[in-house]
Amino acid sequence: MEFDLIARHFTRATPGAVLGVGDDCALLAPSPGMQLAVTSDMLLEGRHFAPQDSPAGIGHKALAVNLSDLAAMGATPRWATLSIALPAADDAWLAAFARGFFRMAELHGIELVGGDTTRGPLTIAITAIGEIPPGQALRRNGAQAGDDVWVSGVIGSAAAALAYRQGRLFMEQIDAAKVLPALYLPAPQIALGIALRGIATSAIDISDGLLADLGHILERSSAGARLEFAALPVLPVLQAYLHEPVARECVLAGGDDYELCFTAPAARRDAVRAAAETAGVAVTRIGHITSGPGLTVVAPDGQPLPVDKTGYDHFDE
Amino acid sequence: MEFDLIARHFTRATPGAVLGVGDDCALLAPSPGMQLAVTSDMLLEGRHFAPQDSPAGIGHKALAVNLSDLAAMGATPRWATLSIALPAADDAWLAAFARGFFRMAELHGIELVGGDTTRGPLTIAITAIGEIPPGQALRRNGAQAGDDVWVSGVIGSAAAALAYRQGRLFMEQIDAAKVLPALYLPAPQIALGIALRGIATSAIDISDGLLADLGHILERSSAGARLEFAALPVLPVLQAYLHEPVARECVLAGGDDYELCFTAPAARRDAVRAAAETAGVAVTRIGHITSGPGLTVVAPDGQPLPVDKTGYDHFDE
Repeated sequence: MEFDLIARHFTRATPGAVLGVGDDCALLAPSPGMQLAVTSDMLLEGRHFAPQDSPAGIGHKALAVNLSDLAAMGATPRWATLSIALPAADDAWLAAFARGFFRMAELHGIELVGGDTTRGPLTIAITAIGEIPPGQALRRNGAQAGDDVWVSGVIGSAAAALAYRQGRLFMEQIDAAKVLPALYLPAPQIALGIALRGIATSAIDISDGLLADLGHILERSSAGARLEFAALPVLPVLQAYLHEPVARECVLAGGDDYELCFTAPAARRDAVRAAAETAGVAVTRIGHITSGPGLTVVAPDGQPLPVDKTGYDHFDE
Repeated sequence: MEFDLIARHFTRATPGAVLGVGDDCALLAPSPGMQLAVTSDMLLEGRHFAPQDSPAGIGHKALAVNLSDLAAMGATPRWATLSIALPAADDAWLAAFARGFFRMAELHGIELVGGDTTRGPLTIAITAIGEIPPGQALRRNGAQAGDDVWVSGVIGSAAAALAYRQGRLFMEQIDAAKVLPALYLPAPQIALGIALRGIATSAIDISDGLLADLGHILERSSAGARLEFAALPVLPVLQAYLHEPVARECVLAGGDDYELCFTAPAARRDAVRAAAETAGVAVTRIGHITSGPGLTVVAPDGQPLPVDKTGYDHFDE
């Protein structure tokens, strides 16, 4: 039976679960006293990935975007379920998808404990569950006027790679090769999220673009922010293209970065840097929270940049 | 923004969660000492429901099939996430879908705490989380030779309704009207699952058909079973069609019943009946577990029925 093929690719030992794949439900024993962080994302072919994309890369990215939500909450990954619709039970495709999925899962200690398979247009729905001590979750509503605004890693690379692939941004091939990994193999900032517990006042992962996602923090925190464009961490190869409006838009509003944007009191700068060092991640201070509303990006000449696209909405495109 | 429309339809108070919809993750505080039962199902238009089906019914059924998995484990429903792909943000469709979804949710005390929305072919992916005391889950692997085999409610109605709709089974319209609710508005046996904790030795919900699902219990329990066809609980209206092979197949292998099939020691018959009374559900003893392997269905004349289709496989169709 072809279902056996699927069971074969997706059944692994689950020592962290009471009961994994194979019954009506998985059974899990949460760690005493911990709260659960739960997130669900759905990815569709033609929308979140392309038919020609590598199945291992799709498996990697599908789990990575869910882990990124756990990271933004400061949660420790524990368990996941995977529901997948496939046009046909394609052995080679499933083997490669599972390879990418489980490489990411093993890297972050998350166990696949259940799910569903059906025939249909290629669709991947994942629910990820993590644990966090009560009161330590990094929420969106805690940013205070005067807090620094930080981002991890570099931003804009994934959007630039997509713009290059779609012919909207001209890049030399040797340059494009340097931004493409960000699009196909995003790295969720799990270790940083955990290290920022008790330090960051708010956090979000950058999936829809820096301005849109920071906008969610500002809305929930009833605050504004002022950012310095020149401070934004961008790969050197992408810096060379920032004279192009499309490249600037990739940095500010491109999305798919899966870096953390977070706020912390100015008095905790050393603690933020120590947390980043613990996590082995670069962090950059890009501006500060203001008491008045609104999000301003200041250009190197001191003038506010015209900001008319603050990320995108899946139903507005 | 059209996203607001979705948030409006799917945001409800979640007093049972620390944090519901609106951050990177939901935050949940499991009850101390309880284990979690987690299940995920994906439903696609054209496969699990038809384009002309009522959106309220789709909302009802999408959550019901997940709740049925919790019922089969004996778990108490707590939280769910809903990821949905839609061709367009259709206000009327979403309002009706949400009405069906939340009616079912409120009936069983489950709270929607997160999810995802995207544009695409109509697809619904739900993860449901329940709680159960350690060691009391109704698993598939505990059936013992000599145990009775039971089913709740009646079986075959949903499959007969589908066969009627597809023109494979001729029924008088007045008769068909009596089986159609089983297809569109299945009722998960949550109360029965909870009442059977400590009584049933194994349980499963009938989604792929009695023979296929009981087969999962037998495989996991390394046992066989002998069933009496005449004992199977079938709506009187459907009894009148059982001379048709298609109608018999609906009862044995039709699926979509979402009743519980479970086993219990013969010495616990009174306890099973008391549990069913507590839950307000009929239960019927349909056969017993054998030590030898194999699943036999005995016809009223005492001869084994030829059983060649033991349910269906989503990739075999």
